[in-house]
Amino acid sequence: MSEPGWTFVKGHGTGNDFVLLPDPGDKLTLTEAVVAAICDRRTGIGADGVLRVVPAQPARAGRWFMDYRNADGSLAEMCGNGARVFARYLVDADLAAPGTFTIDTRAGTRTLHVPDGGGDITVDMGPATIDPRTDLTVTVAGPQGPGHPWPAVGVDMGNPHAVCFVTDLETAGPLDTPPTVRPADAFRHGVNVEFVVDTGPAHVTMRVHERGSGATLSCGTGACAVFAAARCRPGADPSATWTVDVPGGRLVLHQRTDGAIDLTGPAQLVASGTLDPTWLEAHRA
Amino acid sequence: MSEPGWTFVKGHGTGNDFVLLPDPGDKLTLTEAVVAAICDRRTGIGADGVLRVVPAQPARAGRWFMDYRNADGSLAEMCGNGARVFARYLVDADLAAPGTFTIDTRAGTRTLHVPDGGGDITVDMGPATIDPRTDLTVTVAGPQGPGHPWPAVGVDMGNPHAVCFVTDLETAGPLDTPPTVRPADAFRHGVNVEFVVDTGPAHVTMRVHERGSGATLSCGTGACAVFAAARCRPGADPSATWTVDVPGGRLVLHQRTDGAIDLTGPAQLVASGTLDPTWLEAHRA
Repeated sequence: MSEPGWTFVKGHGTGNDFVLLPDPGDKLTLTEAVVAAICDRRTGIGADGVLRVVPAQPARAGRWFMDYRNADGSLAEMCGNGARVFARYLVDADLAAPGTFTIDTRAGTRTLHVPDGGGDITVDMGPATIDPRTDLTVTVAGPQGPGHPWPAVGVDMGNPHAVCFVTDLETAGPLDTPPTVRPADAFRHGVNVEFVVDTGPAHVTMRVHERGSGATLSCGTGACAVFAAARCRPGADPSATWTVDVPGGRLVLHQRTDGAIDLTGPAQLVASGTLDPTWLEAHRA
Repeated sequence: MSEPGWTFVKGHGTGNDFVLLPDPGDKLTLTEAVVAAICDRRTGIGADGVLRVVPAQPARAGRWFMDYRNADGSLAEMCGNGARVFARYLVDADLAAPGTFTIDTRAGTRTLHVPDGGGDITVDMGPATIDPRTDLTVTVAGPQGPGHPWPAVGVDMGNPHAVCFVTDLETAGPLDTPPTVRPADAFRHGVNVEFVVDTGPAHVTMRVHERGSGATLSCGTGACAVFAAARCRPGADPSATWTVDVPGGRLVLHQRTDGAIDLTGPAQLVASGTLDPTWLEAHRA
């Protein structure tokens, strides 16, 4: 006798997509295997990660915890695109009122703003820390082997980034394989790499290689790292709001007076339903 | 005022995945744009194609038409993996009784067998026609440029195939880019290419480059083409049932006395639900 299938919602923010698993009773057991099965794009639903929606602990009236897992089933701390989709779901499902509210994540409590009636969602991404190193370079392997070493700015957003300002985004090639960052000991656990061009005043366009994922359509912490590196260049207005275009859409960033970065962007729910009980049982075994 | 979201079911056969749209009233208008949006693996549900489930015309009691669309929204005729998933859905939804029944497709009427209680599904794929040409070759571009020209057998399954028997499946490289088939005028509208190794008696393993899709986990007509080419080699038993392993799983093939090929393999339903009305409206506009 199989148990009832789990309910789910699929959504995305700038092409970064998630399967949400509403779990108000905190009863679902998420093994790495079942998360990976759900995220498989051919034999599952397909997503970049799973967001289990569970009451915050210790229980706080009306606050929710974003239990975020990567597509391979591993635990993850925080995701700006995922948090917006999570917030959209909470409001859509009447689990939170529109306006400003907080959620808990493994990276701590985050403030979100969901406009009443729809529109882009803002998430507090915390502060960026610029790496004082000036000797960082990034090299990308091309068809003819490794190419030019690009100067990079190291930025920490809880996860590490190397940001390269270039004059032509195609310079970096397809970004499918991990770029080489020097010195070799600068990022012992790997690094996310962003290539950036200036598109206009306080407006840049970026591409990203995400550590462990490859070229992706969007990366929330990557956009924050790019914003932080761009706004501290000589001549930049530190109070400006910046537009960062990613392959999957447009993000808007602003630094608050407390130093945290507000990331604003779209979040769309695509579908909702139930996992087939027979399929689920096979992947939980 | 948005209309209610469309209901859907997602399923796959050997990793070839589909979104089914039940449409018993024949009321859904499938534009290329909405099909492509549904099949987008980041901003939609994600699938290799859409199978609309609609009553056969002229209306025949209990017979269903498989309205198959490619992921880009274009019309398609027939798909062996899709037909099994379609049949699994019909039985699961009590629209057909387990056992043997027929469905209509753009390639004509097809007979299916769904065992009572589950198990692999058999679909009549029609006959294969072996191309009499003996001068066909396939060349694959590798890191060092075009490689060895492999002799190929041309097979028509309603769509064209070039089947290459090799001693090492890795020979063909990643198969991401279209192989070059000579003579250049042999397949004016492109061709699906299969690389095949013998794995045991009446047992082969194949990889495929699908015309317009690239390397895929499975191809039903490709497995039929491989079976047809393998069983007519000198020394092969023409009455044997063959096992064809594809990257996404195992298929079993047999030629019936009427010359049609029966393709047997798994079909699994993954999830069911409703497309978000707001998302749907945005993509139908």
